[in-house]
Amino acid sequence: MARQFVVGVDIGGQTSKIGVVDTRGDVLAQSVIRTDTFGEDANAYIEALAEAVKACVAAADKTMEDIRGIGVGAPNGNYYTGEVAFAPNLAWAAKEAVPLAKKLSEACGVPVSLTNDANAAAVGEMAYGAARGMKNFIMITLGTGVGSGIVVDGKVLYGHDGFAGELGHTCVVRHNGRTCGCGKTGCLEAYCSAIGISRTAREWLEASGQPTPLRELQNITSKDIYDAAKQGDNFALRLFDYTGTLLGQSFADFVAFSAPEAIVLFGGLARAKEFLYEPMKRAMEDNLLKIWKGKVEIIFSELKESDAAILGASALAWEL
Amino acid sequence: MARQFVVGVDIGGQTSKIGVVDTRGDVLAQSVIRTDTFGEDANAYIEALAEAVKACVAAADKTMEDIRGIGVGAPNGNYYTGEVAFAPNLAWAAKEAVPLAKKLSEACGVPVSLTNDANAAAVGEMAYGAARGMKNFIMITLGTGVGSGIVVDGKVLYGHDGFAGELGHTCVVRHNGRTCGCGKTGCLEAYCSAIGISRTAREWLEASGQPTPLRELQNITSKDIYDAAKQGDNFALRLFDYTGTLLGQSFADFVAFSAPEAIVLFGGLARAKEFLYEPMKRAMEDNLLKIWKGKVEIIFSELKESDAAILGASALAWEL
Repeated sequence: MARQFVVGVDIGGQTSKIGVVDTRGDVLAQSVIRTDTFGEDANAYIEALAEAVKACVAAADKTMEDIRGIGVGAPNGNYYTGEVAFAPNLAWAAKEAVPLAKKLSEACGVPVSLTNDANAAAVGEMAYGAARGMKNFIMITLGTGVGSGIVVDGKVLYGHDGFAGELGHTCVVRHNGRTCGCGKTGCLEAYCSAIGISRTAREWLEASGQPTPLRELQNITSKDIYDAAKQGDNFALRLFDYTGTLLGQSFADFVAFSAPEAIVLFGGLARAKEFLYEPMKRAMEDNLLKIWKGKVEIIFSELKESDAAILGASALAWEL
Repeated sequence: MARQFVVGVDIGGQTSKIGVVDTRGDVLAQSVIRTDTFGEDANAYIEALAEAVKACVAAADKTMEDIRGIGVGAPNGNYYTGEVAFAPNLAWAAKEAVPLAKKLSEACGVPVSLTNDANAAAVGEMAYGAARGMKNFIMITLGTGVGSGIVVDGKVLYGHDGFAGELGHTCVVRHNGRTCGCGKTGCLEAYCSAIGISRTAREWLEASGQPTPLRELQNITSKDIYDAAKQGDNFALRLFDYTGTLLGQSFADFVAFSAPEAIVLFGGLARAKEFLYEPMKRAMEDNLLKIWKGKVEIIFSELKESDAAILGASALAWEL
């Protein structure tokens, strides 16, 4: 009997989620461990992760003999090298390249495939979500940052070095753009992430006297802006309009690159669909070449957010 | 004995070049016909082209039995459909989609593969030129317009509809950008083509009183600007610096998309290498993420310009 199950691991800055998944994309068991309690000790983290994987497999009433492989999505995860390298949000991989795929594979006795979190999300969406049946699409994750996974002919585009698809760090504001976490200025991520829209809010509060409940808050989050927009606050609505417009302008350039069937959105900020869709779509259409006008969809992830990361990572493992 | 030769056809607005090519990339015979003397009669053009192909094969002392196939590069040529569609510079294909691959194949009795001219140049560069051995690179053609061919894992990226790689129409000047031939504003092509740099020259002559020999000319071409720069004219040198800077900024975003090994430049304006390279390289490096700094080359085509288009198109035919 062939091995019928895979394990998906989603490594985030605070927690790592683990799930055992069957061929239909059902998550049979899942668990969570901390990512951030191992300091700079990568080996200690990987040991803990391997134990958690084995425990999760046992909790699903399976043994490691039933597992075809483990798929891992991690910030700065490199598909070619199997390393997590210089990831600012992972203390144990911030200063060096950690051969996570190799070590986890040795500890668990099954093959491991690694990629970055946005690529994993793209694979998950293609296998189980809104991009089922599509062979050419671009996944954009709108979370704390802006990530991307580009699918061409049914495969993730990795490029020469495995790092292709860093669309969050393409330039959206060329002159006088704000500084991004990456050190550059004017990046899409500095404007259109959860943090980006909050930065825009703070800038605009200083620049304008427009009344808004957001003015009362000490720390404005994207959730606060969403809630204000829900209540009809014009300032918050303008923030989404601006953010959506920048996204749509960028999407038009992305389309000129890989001619996708659709742009698929995922992540916390994408939940503000009702406020982002219209300006995104309008700005994208306004900036598309005629051959693409009206032909490229903007759609939203259909995966439950709690499962999506695990499913995406697990989908990688089927290719093993 | 297998068929050992291919035919390459490069369709331009004024002329179409035809060549018979062997496996080493040697052009055994070549000829030229007019593209622009058939009005809107696509069939008449294709008949003339088929006759010219047969004559060229005969001139190479071969018969059509020796020909494996014909590769064609044409503006707006679509690899998937084999059509040339809505090409503004081809009167016989400006208003409708012409099934050129099918009709030429019927007329010549061998298979025909069609793509756009920049993709053909990319294939030629990979088979015979500066990109030999590369599997991930981006070809940028700097001619009357700006074209691009994107190679991923050794294959041209065509996308969902066959039109991928229109990087000349990504936005390089977002605010108040000049109008492009495509109808959009701020496109790379409107600034960094042979026509684009001439437009910049005319704008700057009005805006500044800087003395320059270019001021005496009625019609400024990119060649005039090149000649002035050669003579040390500071105005012309500034034009190349500006044009190269915009190119380099755009290249950095292209790298974030497909993580290529190199950007390969081709076309008339690329001959101004000595003035464009330094600002291009500097602007690209300034705008790259750290993972790519110092790692992506900007190189120039190694193909003779007269052969390059034919070789590029012919290389397509080997895949038939």
